[in-house]
Amino acid sequence: MANETIPYKIYLEESEMPRYWYNVRADMKNKPAPLINPATHEPMSASDLAPVFCDELIAQELDNDTREYPIPQEILGFYKMYRPSPLVRAYCLEEKLQTPAKIYYKFEGNNTSGSHKLNSAIAQAYYAKKQGLKGVTTETGAGQWGTALSMACAYLGLDCKVYMVKVSYEQKPFRREVMRTYGASVTPSPSDTTSIGRKILAEHPGTTGSLGCAISEAVEVATSTPGYRYVLGSVLNQVLLHQSVIGLETKIALDKYGIKPDIIIGCAGGGSNLGGLISPFMGEKLRGEADYRIIAVEPASCPSFTRGVFAYDFCDTGMVCPLAKMYTLGADYIPAPNHAGGLRYHGMSPVLSQLYHDGYMEATSVPQTKVFEAAEFFARSEGILPAPESSHAIRVAIDEALKCKETGEEKTIVFGLSGTGYFDLVAYQKFNDGLMDDYIPTDEELQESFSKLPKVD
Amino acid sequence: MANETIPYKIYLEESEMPRYWYNVRADMKNKPAPLINPATHEPMSASDLAPVFCDELIAQELDNDTREYPIPQEILGFYKMYRPSPLVRAYCLEEKLQTPAKIYYKFEGNNTSGSHKLNSAIAQAYYAKKQGLKGVTTETGAGQWGTALSMACAYLGLDCKVYMVKVSYEQKPFRREVMRTYGASVTPSPSDTTSIGRKILAEHPGTTGSLGCAISEAVEVATSTPGYRYVLGSVLNQVLLHQSVIGLETKIALDKYGIKPDIIIGCAGGGSNLGGLISPFMGEKLRGEADYRIIAVEPASCPSFTRGVFAYDFCDTGMVCPLAKMYTLGADYIPAPNHAGGLRYHGMSPVLSQLYHDGYMEATSVPQTKVFEAAEFFARSEGILPAPESSHAIRVAIDEALKCKETGEEKTIVFGLSGTGYFDLVAYQKFNDGLMDDYIPTDEELQESFSKLPKVD
Repeated sequence: MANETIPYKIYLEESEMPRYWYNVRADMKNKPAPLINPATHEPMSASDLAPVFCDELIAQELDNDTREYPIPQEILGFYKMYRPSPLVRAYCLEEKLQTPAKIYYKFEGNNTSGSHKLNSAIAQAYYAKKQGLKGVTTETGAGQWGTALSMACAYLGLDCKVYMVKVSYEQKPFRREVMRTYGASVTPSPSDTTSIGRKILAEHPGTTGSLGCAISEAVEVATSTPGYRYVLGSVLNQVLLHQSVIGLETKIALDKYGIKPDIIIGCAGGGSNLGGLISPFMGEKLRGEADYRIIAVEPASCPSFTRGVFAYDFCDTGMVCPLAKMYTLGADYIPAPNHAGGLRYHGMSPVLSQLYHDGYMEATSVPQTKVFEAAEFFARSEGILPAPESSHAIRVAIDEALKCKETGEEKTIVFGLSGTGYFDLVAYQKFNDGLMDDYIPTDEELQESFSKLPKVD
Repeated sequence: MANETIPYKIYLEESEMPRYWYNVRADMKNKPAPLINPATHEPMSASDLAPVFCDELIAQELDNDTREYPIPQEILGFYKMYRPSPLVRAYCLEEKLQTPAKIYYKFEGNNTSGSHKLNSAIAQAYYAKKQGLKGVTTETGAGQWGTALSMACAYLGLDCKVYMVKVSYEQKPFRREVMRTYGASVTPSPSDTTSIGRKILAEHPGTTGSLGCAISEAVEVATSTPGYRYVLGSVLNQVLLHQSVIGLETKIALDKYGIKPDIIIGCAGGGSNLGGLISPFMGEKLRGEADYRIIAVEPASCPSFTRGVFAYDFCDTGMVCPLAKMYTLGADYIPAPNHAGGLRYHGMSPVLSQLYHDGYMEATSVPQTKVFEAAEFFARSEGILPAPESSHAIRVAIDEALKCKETGEEKTIVFGLSGTGYFDLVAYQKFNDGLMDDYIPTDEELQESFSKLPKVD
């Protein structure tokens, strides 16, 4: 079954691991639009952002020019605890599909956070520590980001305060316990620990919370507690910078075996996984050195690339953060309650939004039952139970491989398997019981949401 | 922090992976006592076992002489999907402990079953398929073995019927859903699908089931359904044979870097993980080629090595299986309900029992709160959330490393990290909430249990 020259799993030696992050903005002709102040519509400066974010992270956020950032030695040490991640040749999947396509996936799930989120969590925690801070705050919904941040803070001896949407706190106690085991304090949001939380509790005593409210609480605590800053796991430019380690490792591994991908596929929520995976390949494309088909895959129920608008919008539903120019469904947009496949964010990384706008990548959306069918097929073929998010990429990789089967083309497909589904079994159960259905928003719903976008010239 | 010559993680090349399993029985002067028929007390022959087990597995079970079993090509292919597993140098743990000891762990948790169980599941499923069977049956408690077997059967296109103890079926729905996602049928036991299940349900309508009952149901279905056999995930000689891949990989990796361990530590329930890890080292010890301290770690609440008796006993509480000579607490022994740390089996692998009886290894028991303290310390140092079972080995590895800190000795400690704790968060929650306590059986309880052992000359 196996091609003798390519192993099932390509692990880089530690000496081959990337020693810098790649900043794709340096190679973009059209830079991503700056974050702007919601009141003045002026670009946010470093000093505007300083009360909220760590200083070095702000510098990274605003830097559109430096191509390579050396990865600090301490972060390299932490990376070695769970990286390099394997680039897997999906021999078994290929055989089950009977496709001439060669399929590879970069697997980021082999760590306790269960996803790629740790790559940026450790970086952000490191810079907070370096700045002499006592701790960081953040919000979490399903809990992957919160888990990753808890792990990073435990390693560095940094305090970690996580505001977890109350309904998730109550319904997903296992993620919460992982965070507590790593020493994080986890507070159900809204809570009485913040003024915004108390206000919301007074107005809506029975509320189960929202991501927007959790962000507001986390930002309030960060800005009002000496020695604390707020950190975020996706969307931001700095996060894509850290996540470039995924793509760099992938490229080194492919180059080592002389493999050139034809198609690169990643799931897209806020863009951290996709942006990280494609970075060095996109760089080659931007510099005219190579060409690749790059495909972003999003859920049909939350289709920001494929049905959103490219406009300034709030990053959070609580509307306390700066405005970002991005593909968005509107900050109020919430996927239907039956949506179990993750990737619920209304917007998209400004970097990826600009690249998509400029025609450097494609996007497609898939309904969730098709996503879980692909997830199950993949699990039974390759052994790994994938995260619902990652399974969006699996769906399209399988579809492209099946096209190759029809045409006889031996294309090389690389996709990002960003995480495992061990904490998503409620969704799998729904699928296994035949109770999962699809939801696609109507044009009217989206227009209604777009009408509430902030007016920015 | 890092010793430059030893990487954080030693991954073998695929070409370096072991191509045979090692049968430690071939080097034992005192062979493990044979399984005997509970009625006649005669040794079980291959034909006695044929209605229950697959033919080739019976041959492996009874073969005390063949030293090396070539691993079939198809199994090597499956192994490559998730093996080699990393041998990790615990630099971060060493630093947090400030110990001169050098600590390594063999990590078997990076696959969807979450443990080493897959190593034997794929082998057993393979031989069932090769025999032309339609499917296999098994029982599962917490669900790791059932998950592993489901994955193996999905890969090979074999039907898999799992009888899951009813209380686990209801309280641990996530493991159940993983098995269903891999296409297994999972039946809460006792059920109305078997005569023994119906009998128990009639006698005890409200029962939440037991492992003994689940075994009885799985064996009944295997022996009464054409084309089916029963498979088991621990205790048996064949399982230790397959699990030798853990130790063989460990030894190859250590040899590659010229490392000779002083102490080898593993947790012990039925013995599959410990037996696999120590196999090749024990072989050297038996042949007089090297010496190692080998330590089995068991929970204080289920101390078969340290407080059990070496005697013939039933392998199952349902008493339908042959008798095995082993260290046992009595087939009726059930750890206290507050025991959350796994390793609940009343007996122990006959191979390990004989080796322990003959003085080739040590055993120690640890209370569960100390185990979870070690688990948390390890998670915060090394990033991986360990299984409670594996954390027994972590506890003793840390204790040995702390002894080195006192004496200044630079001992090399290798322990088995057999799995992850992602599905054990109810236990972690209990620990995090300070609600976990210890239970140690009294001598009277154990004597009462021993008095029910079958009388065998």
